[in-house]
Amino acid sequence: MRNWLLPEYVADILPATARQVESAKASMLELFRTSGYELVLPPLIEYYDALVTPEDGALAIKTFKLDDHFSGRQLGLRADITPQVARIDAHLLSQRTGVTRLCYAGSVVHSRPDGLMSSREPLQVGAELYGYAGIEADLEIIRLMLTSLRQIGVEGLRLDVGHMGLFRGLVQAAGLGHELSAEVFSVLQAKDLSTLRELLVDVAEPYRSAFLALPELYGSRAVLDKARTRLPSLPEVELGLMQLAAVANSLEGEVELNFDLTELRGTHYHNGLMFAAYAPGWAEELARGGRYDNVGRRFGRARPATGFSLDLRDLIRILPQNESAKGIKLAANLLPQATIKVAELRARGEKVIVDYLGESAAALNCDRELVKAGENWQLVPFK
Amino acid sequence: MRNWLLPEYVADILPATARQVESAKASMLELFRTSGYELVLPPLIEYYDALVTPEDGALAIKTFKLDDHFSGRQLGLRADITPQVARIDAHLLSQRTGVTRLCYAGSVVHSRPDGLMSSREPLQVGAELYGYAGIEADLEIIRLMLTSLRQIGVEGLRLDVGHMGLFRGLVQAAGLGHELSAEVFSVLQAKDLSTLRELLVDVAEPYRSAFLALPELYGSRAVLDKARTRLPSLPEVELGLMQLAAVANSLEGEVELNFDLTELRGTHYHNGLMFAAYAPGWAEELARGGRYDNVGRRFGRARPATGFSLDLRDLIRILPQNESAKGIKLAANLLPQATIKVAELRARGEKVIVDYLGESAAALNCDRELVKAGENWQLVPFK
Repeated sequence: MRNWLLPEYVADILPATARQVESAKASMLELFRTSGYELVLPPLIEYYDALVTPEDGALAIKTFKLDDHFSGRQLGLRADITPQVARIDAHLLSQRTGVTRLCYAGSVVHSRPDGLMSSREPLQVGAELYGYAGIEADLEIIRLMLTSLRQIGVEGLRLDVGHMGLFRGLVQAAGLGHELSAEVFSVLQAKDLSTLRELLVDVAEPYRSAFLALPELYGSRAVLDKARTRLPSLPEVELGLMQLAAVANSLEGEVELNFDLTELRGTHYHNGLMFAAYAPGWAEELARGGRYDNVGRRFGRARPATGFSLDLRDLIRILPQNESAKGIKLAANLLPQATIKVAELRARGEKVIVDYLGESAAALNCDRELVKAGENWQLVPFK
Repeated sequence: MRNWLLPEYVADILPATARQVESAKASMLELFRTSGYELVLPPLIEYYDALVTPEDGALAIKTFKLDDHFSGRQLGLRADITPQVARIDAHLLSQRTGVTRLCYAGSVVHSRPDGLMSSREPLQVGAELYGYAGIEADLEIIRLMLTSLRQIGVEGLRLDVGHMGLFRGLVQAAGLGHELSAEVFSVLQAKDLSTLRELLVDVAEPYRSAFLALPELYGSRAVLDKARTRLPSLPEVELGLMQLAAVANSLEGEVELNFDLTELRGTHYHNGLMFAAYAPGWAEELARGGRYDNVGRRFGRARPATGFSLDLRDLIRILPQNESAKGIKLAANLLPQATIKVAELRARGEKVIVDYLGESAAALNCDRELVKAGENWQLVPFK
């Protein structure tokens, strides 16, 4: 066994990419800061029961377990940061009763990858807004997501928008049981109409037709008018369509909008507006989010919440690689005299590389050399 | 069991500290970049056998094991980044035969804390220089370490310097076995003279006296002259003392220097100059490092190597907490008209916080409000 091998779906991030990841992360954290989002850094390990709820089977499967001989209890290696941030809002910052904005950036570990192209160690970056249920909060989060992507160079963004309330309203009115509703939910994701018809065979009208209409409610703003005629007038449906119209009014012209009333891919805790960002030539979403007003309940405080997250490790693959800036070579024997000059250059952001072995400009990735001409220092370009 | 409890020696980093940690990290990574150090981001999980060698018992005890149902093999959660960086130099960057400078910043997890005040999740930041054995490389790393600490606000630094070569030379010449040398090593760390005398009772002169002299060889530069008279003239001892003198010549006036010939606290792979940085009022070292020329051997390429690392999570506790800058409040109903103005302010680094609930300036941590006066936007200070 060669000990330099890494496990499947685990990789180093090497220099060319690593700086890009760090600078994308820094640019997002700065955007979050100036937008009033406070940074939190929750730990990589927690008690397993705090990281995973019994209802969330998908997360449980992805979470590595650790035997803690120190406490004698079972720990987990976090597979998602969102529940940790909910814990912080609910418990540690519980004296705050107004709006709390939190953001984070950190690695999570999945015991199995989400897909064939996924890493088992996503770098999750995200932001959450707690304490306000209005659609303006969802819009703030959507804009933060879009700006995060644009400022690191993603072009041609498309925003898919859905609403969990429509589905939940229909399920309740139609009296679907827990199991059937979960099946319908996953068949809707797959847009598998024939199975959907089979599943709904015993469901009463107008709900049967409404469920069957959902996969067709896909496209531009006109979808919302169509939905008003095809879906029954339930309070949840009305509210959902009103919020989707508000999104259309607010964001049209800012981003290509696509309404998809089966766009519900989230976890079991989502309950309102859902959204995902896509870019040309990339099949998977770049970022996603939505409203999950109950996420804090199990930590003792359920309050309105909306947020988004993305995997920066994944995202960086679609960006053009910027070549790292060339440096300035300095022969090691000159260093003692050049100390002040070198500090000056570095403070200006220049990369000064001390050469001990007489290496070539190419090997050192330098395009200039610092040399002494009489009393003065000069930067001489390499040919 | 309250599910918001965290395991012992595990903690969230909350907003007041989190920004400080991120900005200290960014300032160190920028210093490393301008000094020619390339960033690598190795994974949190690897095959256990790649992370831990059988000889390194201390690291093995600290490394959490994970059962990987995906590969059927045992993984480890990294407890140290240094061996990962050595793997990258030895294997992934093995086409480079000159000097390679690498740096990193990331969390590691310890199954048990290093001390009563330690965290089980240090944030390890460090830099390594591969491919040059000269003392200039050690000096470059020492200066990088000192500048890293100074630029985040650490004052009154003291540098303790030792040399593993002296101890190794004496052990070899005296013919000490593996077990006895390990015992002598740990007793020297504790400066426990009576046990040291007992251990050395069968060791021949001049080595017995030399070992007994080491704990006294502590203090200013004069220690080096004293060492020449108290230690036998072995090649390793000569080289070690020469390198220590070079450190004195180069760094005197830059930092308070303290020579300590028992300052050897490192791992089993160190073999040359050793150093640690201290600051007033803080018992533990803030950063440490040294030469470990053989660290890459088990990955197929042993070459000269020196480096340092620190725990930023620990370090941040000694820095004064800077208050986070106050923001600018904006009433939510003004947001649609203020979009451009808000983007301008945020691009200038100002924090603009949208107020949905009519919260107080104190609750929002704002000292100004953005208001519209006629056609113009104004920033009005709160009283």
